[in-house]
Amino acid sequence: MTVQAITWAPSGAVRIVDQSMLPEALVHRDVESVAAMADAIRSLQVRGAPLIGIAAAMGLVAGLREQRGATREAFLDQVDGAAACLGATRPTAVNLRWALDRMTAIARATPGDATAVWERLHAEAGAIWEEDRAMCRRIGAAGLTLLPDGTNVLTHCNAGALATGGIGTALAPVYLAREANRRVHVFVDETRPVLQGARLTAWELTHAGVPCTLITDSMAATLMRAARVDLVLVGADRIARNGDFANKIGTYPLAVLARHHGVPFYCCAPSSTIDPAVPDGDAIPIEERSADEVTTIAGRSVAPAGVAVFNPAFDVTPARYVTGYVTDRGLVQPPFEQ
Amino acid sequence: MTVQAITWAPSGAVRIVDQSMLPEALVHRDVESVAAMADAIRSLQVRGAPLIGIAAAMGLVAGLREQRGATREAFLDQVDGAAACLGATRPTAVNLRWALDRMTAIARATPGDATAVWERLHAEAGAIWEEDRAMCRRIGAAGLTLLPDGTNVLTHCNAGALATGGIGTALAPVYLAREANRRVHVFVDETRPVLQGARLTAWELTHAGVPCTLITDSMAATLMRAARVDLVLVGADRIARNGDFANKIGTYPLAVLARHHGVPFYCCAPSSTIDPAVPDGDAIPIEERSADEVTTIAGRSVAPAGVAVFNPAFDVTPARYVTGYVTDRGLVQPPFEQ
Repeated sequence: MTVQAITWAPSGAVRIVDQSMLPEALVHRDVESVAAMADAIRSLQVRGAPLIGIAAAMGLVAGLREQRGATREAFLDQVDGAAACLGATRPTAVNLRWALDRMTAIARATPGDATAVWERLHAEAGAIWEEDRAMCRRIGAAGLTLLPDGTNVLTHCNAGALATGGIGTALAPVYLAREANRRVHVFVDETRPVLQGARLTAWELTHAGVPCTLITDSMAATLMRAARVDLVLVGADRIARNGDFANKIGTYPLAVLARHHGVPFYCCAPSSTIDPAVPDGDAIPIEERSADEVTTIAGRSVAPAGVAVFNPAFDVTPARYVTGYVTDRGLVQPPFEQ
Repeated sequence: MTVQAITWAPSGAVRIVDQSMLPEALVHRDVESVAAMADAIRSLQVRGAPLIGIAAAMGLVAGLREQRGATREAFLDQVDGAAACLGATRPTAVNLRWALDRMTAIARATPGDATAVWERLHAEAGAIWEEDRAMCRRIGAAGLTLLPDGTNVLTHCNAGALATGGIGTALAPVYLAREANRRVHVFVDETRPVLQGARLTAWELTHAGVPCTLITDSMAATLMRAARVDLVLVGADRIARNGDFANKIGTYPLAVLARHHGVPFYCCAPSSTIDPAVPDGDAIPIEERSADEVTTIAGRSVAPAGVAVFNPAFDVTPARYVTGYVTDRGLVQPPFEQ
């Protein structure tokens, strides 16, 4: 069974899997307020480009559920404030802004009092989630042809069920191949510094019964050179119009290595990840995160005190390295028009 | 000041820096016996291809210092036994076998009783160490021309003072550039899984006052693409006759990335690292180490229980990716003859 990363709690809160606790414990957490959801996104309790869009939309609804008695104008102000708060948590993923823009637009476009607007927002957040689940399966279906029986996939970071409302993006073809009773094995890059591959991808594949082998990021080249990798599947945090895309740091070297070794390299993402306002990779803002992520692991310092650190959360892979884009609209190629 | 990784203790034991304690503490440990030195090498308290050769030779001398009263034949048997024990600790580094072969050959070639043989072995271990110190400086001198003022170096793992009896191999040109008052800055790959870059290289550079920036292994490509790396300097655990060389896992992808981005890539090693008995990289045995190194960091599990792991300690970089070999005999090119 693939894990379900997000759902509504009976109380109306958003129930998330606290991904910062994996793989040691599967902890569900009920997020009650906008500030708590912003904190959950910022601290990577909820992460993955599609999932943080869904989580932001659902968190906005849950956080404003006590405000239904306000005036329409006051409520719309609160919607805008909540969207600004949630939108400021992570700069790179376009899905977050996309989901929040959709929520604020629908709020303004809905007539009636605060209750009517809130109920419309509740339905819209549910729709964003449902669309994501359906999109995951369409991505999986589009990629399924790339995974004949006995395929060895290599993936980076987590673009699986824990990154979405459904069965994932890069892992969706893997899960559908398993549903189709094909043998598939996944090499999982541990993905330093935050170890999403080790902590999340290896966990969710094991949880779902998919055979996998964990490696450090530096071992992928050895596997490719030994012809043990049939294809690379990765997700994306933002795709520019020309096909350049930002994804977890470590994606770009994989793309270069895949090209060098003749291994097909696919970017798997929902259409909402494509940002037609961004012409190419140079225009994608790259978040730099705290030095602590590199110097401290599990609370223990692994580097000398005060050492300088460079810690970009993402890198940009130019389109020329990408064999194809596996999306809910099928296997596509850039340029991507509006 | 560069750190001194090994020396004689007043007791006649071998005094090592316990590298498994860095960067949290600088702990010196006196190694009294052959078994204790074998354990120190196996558990990476002493590591780095040149240093483990020196440590094995010195450990053999220290461990047999109480046996000087034995008969010549019994003593020579003990020398062989000690060499076998020490030689079995790590399979990839050629320096270890080279140093031990030298010690066993000199023992047999030395006339006289056990005391005379032991004293010759003591002198020989000292000579191996002194030659290494001199070799480090010659490597540094050979590489110095590659580091004009303002150079940004990228290095992987630890091929510094902590890997040798002197100022290192890959870092020797860096230390000599600093001695020559050139500005030099080093990007340090953290080097998963054992984090020798973070724990050792960043520590010894900081200790010596050389500016450095720590990165995860997956960030090197981003720096190369941004033209922030002028050259790559790495060490070697074994160099084949044709120039293929084994070094810490993660070296081969760096070489591919350097080639791809037009960044010069140099292998820095003493001549003793060249194994003329090995025709090419395919013939170099690659040690696979425990899954725990990948799944557990600082005592905490970072991966789901029981997950499969692939953990080769080294990879092989084909000679065609190497701009040059910086050795104690100067900047050289393969093939390397006996």
